[in-house]
Amino acid sequence: MNVSILKRKCFLFPGSVLLTIMFMGNVSAQEKSHYMRIAKIVVDSAQLENYKSALREGMSAAVSNEPGVLSLYAVFDKQHPTHITIFETYADVNAYQSHIQTPHFKKYKSTVEQMVKSLELTDVIPIALEGKKEAK
Amino acid sequence: MNVSILKRKCFLFPGSVLLTIMFMGNVSAQEKSHYMRIAKIVVDSAQLENYKSALREGMSAAVSNEPGVLSLYAVFDKQHPTHITIFETYADVNAYQSHIQTPHFKKYKSTVEQMVKSLELTDVIPIALEGKKEAK
Repeated sequence: MNVSILKRKCFLFPGSVLLTIMFMGNVSAQEKSHYMRIAKIVVDSAQLENYKSALREGMSAAVSNEPGVLSLYAVFDKQHPTHITIFETYADVNAYQSHIQTPHFKKYKSTVEQMVKSLELTDVIPIALEGKKEAK
Repeated sequence: MNVSILKRKCFLFPGSVLLTIMFMGNVSAQEKSHYMRIAKIVVDSAQLENYKSALREGMSAAVSNEPGVLSLYAVFDKQHPTHITIFETYADVNAYQSHIQTPHFKKYKSTVEQMVKSLELTDVIPIALEGKKEAK
């Protein structure tokens, strides 16, 4: 990889940049030790916007403040907007255990308690995680 | 964000780094135009390792060679290793349409044709995409 190009991209880093650089190919040893999970959530349609606000707030606090919360990607199904999927990556299972004890997570859980109709959690293991840098 | 730290991290960039830097908060306008999809695939258990190899090869070729294939994250369910989920992000729907015309995608599809028991594709829209830099 051309490090000088990477360095230049970093200097150009804008506030809204999404910069993802990942080793191409197999999952590294450290990625294998990460704790990854997919959460599938169905939300009460009348509460959907309130739910999204609470989710964004909780996600932002977690990724900003917790070293072990590496990424949280939340999306909704285009055909079923109340069906949410969150793709979660923690440094390890201990980071996840710490996460669920934080005030921001507890606030999120209590806020959305009456908004969530179902929650399905699936532990997953990476096969390959491919991404590239992108400056916007 | 501390740009000087970012710059230093870039200099330390190792071959196997996963470096994800993303603006905290709401999804940006450009992220909203991205085409995102979740693919759920069930694989013949006898062909699982062959399937994973073909998938890794196809993913690597796509992200390396196609400007519009931004990221492909493939995982399997810990409790059901033949159940694969791929979280796909393309620059836009045209990038996806180009992707499925590439030789590497056609090779992947023909290779795995007899390995895949089911395939479910769901178009999704981002709510929030939170990640942070991580040097390994």
